[in-house]
Amino acid sequence: MNITLEQAQKAVAAAIEKSKELNVKMNITVVDSGANLVAFSRIDGAWLGSIDISMKKARTARYFNMNSGEIGKLSQPGGSLFGIEHSNGGLISFPGGVLIKKGDEIIGAIGVSGDSVENDHKVAQAGADAVK
Amino acid sequence: MNITLEQAQKAVAAAIEKSKELNVKMNITVVDSGANLVAFSRIDGAWLGSIDISMKKARTARYFNMNSGEIGKLSQPGGSLFGIEHSNGGLISFPGGVLIKKGDEIIGAIGVSGDSVENDHKVAQAGADAVK
Amino acid sequence: MNITLEQAQKAVAAAIEKSKELNVKMNITVVDSGANLVAFSRIDGAWLGSIDISMKKARTARYFNMNSGEIGKLSQPGGSLFGIEHSNGGLISFPGGVLIKKGDEIIGAIGVSGDSVENDHKVAQAGADAVK
Amino acid sequence: MNITLEQAQKAVAAAIEKSKELNVKMNITVVDSGANLVAFSRIDGAWLGSIDISMKKARTARYFNMNSGEIGKLSQPGGSLFGIEHSNGGLISFPGGVLIKKGDEIIGAIGVSGDSVENDHKVAQAGADAVK
Repeated sequence: MNITLEQAQKAVAAAIEKSKELNVKMNITVVDSGANLVAFSRIDGAWLGSIDISMKKARTARYFNMNSGEIGKLSQPGGSLFGIEHSNGGLISFPGGVLIKKGDEIIGAIGVSGDSVENDHKVAQAGADAVK
Repeated sequence: MNITLEQAQKAVAAAIEKSKELNVKMNITVVDSGANLVAFSRIDGAWLGSIDISMKKARTARYFNMNSGEIGKLSQPGGSLFGIEHSNGGLISFPGGVLIKKGDEIIGAIGVSGDSVENDHKVAQAGADAVK
Repeated sequence: MNITLEQAQKAVAAAIEKSKELNVKMNITVVDSGANLVAFSRIDGAWLGSIDISMKKARTARYFNMNSGEIGKLSQPGGSLFGIEHSNGGLISFPGGVLIKKGDEIIGAIGVSGDSVENDHKVAQAGADAVK
Repeated sequence: MNITLEQAQKAVAAAIEKSKELNVKMNITVVDSGANLVAFSRIDGAWLGSIDISMKKARTARYFNMNSGEIGKLSQPGGSLFGIEHSNGGLISFPGGVLIKKGDEIIGAIGVSGDSVENDHKVAQAGADAVK
């Protein structure tokens, strides 16, 4: 099962809503279960460098079927996955990439970048929750 | 002056509307005056290869301040810009990339890919017209 | 629906069988409906440069839901899609990329490279037919 | 001497067998002595991001004629090879890449990714052992 554009737009809208609530400016990416882009929005004034980061966070989550920050716990110096970020044309392994599920099935992922990783994660989670 | 997310979403919505009218499945990209991504939507079932093409069409239009198809007229074998597609990480020089203007000022561009170049252009133009 | 490893292996085995029949040395790639790699085999002595070409043919077919050679008919100088090969990190638009369907549904694609495009296509078709 | 497709398929089959025994879903790559791809299989449901990682592990092993994890011991912050992962289009320096030898001669390498690095290594070793 794959996320639809309608579901992706709902996730983006919820993420924008959460961004306004937190007073932050975010880049928001939604990919499908094949890690291919479905929807993207950049809030006015959001960091340009976060366009790519939001995409890489969404892909990273789907690539390994876990939130992007989980990868980062294992990829630190001395960790078992140190340097994994060099794969797949570049991964982002800090929080802000969250899986989108329908029941138990992964149908896509959302990546958010533009503020602290805590806020990035909160906004991504809000987007993912809107589809459930 | 730069396109806002609200204007970009209006362009995407108009492009989706036009796609439904033509019964085609499109990938739609909007970039700002800095050629940076603002909004993207992929209609369910649209070609995966057209994600990248819609982005390259939008950027190509803004990179040279003309619709993408204009470049293609000059980049044929023997033409003055032959091979220009090799620049900028890859250009797309056939129709479907259209400038977005506010009055005389270029505020962004829209790129559409997913069907014939004629339909791609029509949908992109509908998106651009929604912002004028 | 997505091609399984078992189906992909069946396609590769049929393609190898056909290659032996034609006395050619091929690289054979199978991707899923998300254009992600599922299986690959290089027959001993097959061209090294055809590893990448077989991958790009398979992806090109899935990217646009048609056999790779169909793209090439439209991407010649003066054609409506001239230069499309510059997209998606490089397309291959000559024959040898064939869709894999289950009934009417596209579940993946196979790309073959290593000999004439006629033989490349024949071998790819034999692979695709083994899954139907 | 170079690994044959038959040997590579034997390695992949053994790796799949070991994966089933460990109840893990793996991506498995075999390269030849020239570090060029010979065979690849992705078990149904295996991580998409591990396609590339399994390839990079196999190449990393053959590039330096040692198991991939050996590189990682030297590439930590302060280590003599810190940052080596930036070379060759991206290396993976944690376990899961294992040399394939015939007697004393290196004839290829196998890279496995999809679970813990311990399991990745076990599966790769099982694949390599099948060729010896």
